[in-house]
Amino acid sequence: MRKRVSSIKPDQVLGRRGFLKGAGLAAAATAASWSAARAGEPDPAIVKLPDHTRYLGDGVEARPYGKPSKFEAHVVKRDVEWLTVSRQSSVNFTPLHELDGIITPNGLCFERHHAGIAEIDPAQHRLMINGLVDKPLIFTMDDIERFPRENRIYFLECAANSGMEWKGAQLNGCQFTHGMIHTVMYTGVPLKYILEEAGLKTNAKWIMPEGADAAAMTRSIPLEKALKDCMVAFKMNGEALRAEQGYPLRIVVPGWEGNMWVKWLRRIEVGDEPWQGREETSKYTDLLSDGRSRRFTWIMDAKSVVTNPSPQAPLKFKGQNVLTGIAWSGRGAIKRVDVTLDGGRNWRTARIDGPVLPMAATRFYVEFDWQGKELMIQSRAMDETGYVQPTKEELRQVRGTNSVYHNNGIQTWLVRANGETENVEIS
Amino acid sequence: MRKRVSSIKPDQVLGRRGFLKGAGLAAAATAASWSAARAGEPDPAIVKLPDHTRYLGDGVEARPYGKPSKFEAHVVKRDVEWLTVSRQSSVNFTPLHELDGIITPNGLCFERHHAGIAEIDPAQHRLMINGLVDKPLIFTMDDIERFPRENRIYFLECAANSGMEWKGAQLNGCQFTHGMIHTVMYTGVPLKYILEEAGLKTNAKWIMPEGADAAAMTRSIPLEKALKDCMVAFKMNGEALRAEQGYPLRIVVPGWEGNMWVKWLRRIEVGDEPWQGREETSKYTDLLSDGRSRRFTWIMDAKSVVTNPSPQAPLKFKGQNVLTGIAWSGRGAIKRVDVTLDGGRNWRTARIDGPVLPMAATRFYVEFDWQGKELMIQSRAMDETGYVQPTKEELRQVRGTNSVYHNNGIQTWLVRANGETENVEIS
Repeated sequence: MRKRVSSIKPDQVLGRRGFLKGAGLAAAATAASWSAARAGEPDPAIVKLPDHTRYLGDGVEARPYGKPSKFEAHVVKRDVEWLTVSRQSSVNFTPLHELDGIITPNGLCFERHHAGIAEIDPAQHRLMINGLVDKPLIFTMDDIERFPRENRIYFLECAANSGMEWKGAQLNGCQFTHGMIHTVMYTGVPLKYILEEAGLKTNAKWIMPEGADAAAMTRSIPLEKALKDCMVAFKMNGEALRAEQGYPLRIVVPGWEGNMWVKWLRRIEVGDEPWQGREETSKYTDLLSDGRSRRFTWIMDAKSVVTNPSPQAPLKFKGQNVLTGIAWSGRGAIKRVDVTLDGGRNWRTARIDGPVLPMAATRFYVEFDWQGKELMIQSRAMDETGYVQPTKEELRQVRGTNSVYHNNGIQTWLVRANGETENVEIS
Repeated sequence: MRKRVSSIKPDQVLGRRGFLKGAGLAAAATAASWSAARAGEPDPAIVKLPDHTRYLGDGVEARPYGKPSKFEAHVVKRDVEWLTVSRQSSVNFTPLHELDGIITPNGLCFERHHAGIAEIDPAQHRLMINGLVDKPLIFTMDDIERFPRENRIYFLECAANSGMEWKGAQLNGCQFTHGMIHTVMYTGVPLKYILEEAGLKTNAKWIMPEGADAAAMTRSIPLEKALKDCMVAFKMNGEALRAEQGYPLRIVVPGWEGNMWVKWLRRIEVGDEPWQGREETSKYTDLLSDGRSRRFTWIMDAKSVVTNPSPQAPLKFKGQNVLTGIAWSGRGAIKRVDVTLDGGRNWRTARIDGPVLPMAATRFYVEFDWQGKELMIQSRAMDETGYVQPTKEELRQVRGTNSVYHNNGIQTWLVRANGETENVEIS
């Protein structure tokens, strides 16, 4: 295990001008072809380009609800069939290597459900508040929408994201190693307004949201968190929640593990102690090497991944390339991301671009020149609390390799001389 | 025409607690029913609720690319058939009354095209830079993606948004009066990097982006704007542009009229004067009452609209209600939004929630108690430059009623005693 924090060399960040100049590029080559064409010697590669100006396309009535171009058909959520016994209690993964910016489009948000996707008619849906409250209440969706709303961009990460990597590099692609995360803008009602409407008893200390699907998912959440920043959300990225994301209502638990963000929310019970349900005892606890388990490990610690290059998105060209990825922390905003191309010998501070929001994905970039040398790429996130993303080895020394959850170790991609990229570990 | 700016009474903003208390609500009623049910007298309205816990839903393989719930089938872009001769040179409208927050999901971004939707294979697409440059260049999509990228949330508004309202209230619904706007996060390359790569001649003063569709759309843009904040974008809300939004490449011209944001971008010519094309002479100029035209009216001035209530989203209940809408300005960030419920006699400052970003939609709310009285609802946006959204009458005094474009006048909705809402004007 190496000390890495001290070896950052920010002066290695490339300048921003003249990227393609003198780097032996397609652009220069095609420009030469274009000049040749202008000189009366047409380049067949250019004159063969399709001429869309000859054809009218579909009109404005064709796509009442739009979908991606047919040339993007490969950009989909994917599941891994052998990973679970049933695909109704399983997971699929966001294609992180196909995305950019910080927003995940609703059609590509990973799914994790325990009894398939409930299809709920919002007119027939109710949210009940019961337990240690002055006045039990049942709300219709219309009632919920009469409370003041807020809009927040948050990441949602499954506690088991990267869970297959505890024993070593397994899955070949950031979609599979890190794709149980998405970031959207939620619109909803601060949970505290709803709890205050019911009135909290003085001994109230915990809440238990419950889902309306066949899993009837429940989790215990401390009241302090519920009152601080939890939301009852009905919209994502402006439109209604998707069925697979809990339509018509889910609880948002910013920065905490995705399993707690109960979907198809139908009830919130208020109590004085945790309920010790299946999902917080048998599951979503972290088995250590001595046989004991960590529990109530709710917060998703700072983490990052390079999404390009990665096994599904190898390097294609020598010369100027853009490395990109996302970083996030359940404890607040990302402060810095460092990237190494040589397995940790040298680090440079990545360029962050786009909104930097607490408990949301943050986009980073490193522009670099590649001349066909083998690379060992890693990224390391630091959040505003000073927490630094650990190596996988550092994590294993404390937590062993029995766990499934909360693997936020540094990911390594090996880029070979031909650009092909693999999931590897540095020992 | 009334003086309105001086009559704001912010003390009329309602407090945020106890919204549903004592307001004669469905919530209280159903809570009573629930209590009755617990006491052994089940309320048929409650016991009839569907029990989703009995049925497994679709698994994770079912929706590789997701779509909205079947219960949201009414939430679509809509066109108005009589508005244009051809639906291939026409427009459809974003259902603003169904949205919240500031992000428009890609499936609901309004469309305006002049020759239908071009379906372009990105592998066959090129961007040419020519004209007053040191070195004409042709880029592949791969080349474009080798430049440093940025991520920005911007609104895009068609200059003709609200264009049917110049002569009076026409269209009954904010989808149709104001739905030629959307706000997404773009990922792309600052245009200045691409122009600098080609090298600008000293007499370069203008650029002309050109589309690859059958309309071969062109517009003249001052070089100063091009170098300041224009982007060549390939992603929206994280994923590839939609075909109807210019896939694989469009130019982003922040704060300026949508017609300039050329889609299916295949060429940028650099010149020393504007090209005076159809779209900046015969169209997208503002005919005044004396027969002269304003031209080069590129900036979209501050504007706002109440999206709920509105004709397609009437008030449903007495008691606590949430009024919401969006405001935006092509000159920067929104500073304040005021709302009146009584046709301008009293104004209150709306609560803004969510990101407040320059040249992006800003979400505002007013929580209010409604007891069935007729309302005349208006919103008025102010931006960071101090510009105040004018009334329609103020606009007409200067601009007449011959124009189609740049109608940013204050919208009035009349809410009747039964909650039904109409598009009206206050004279």
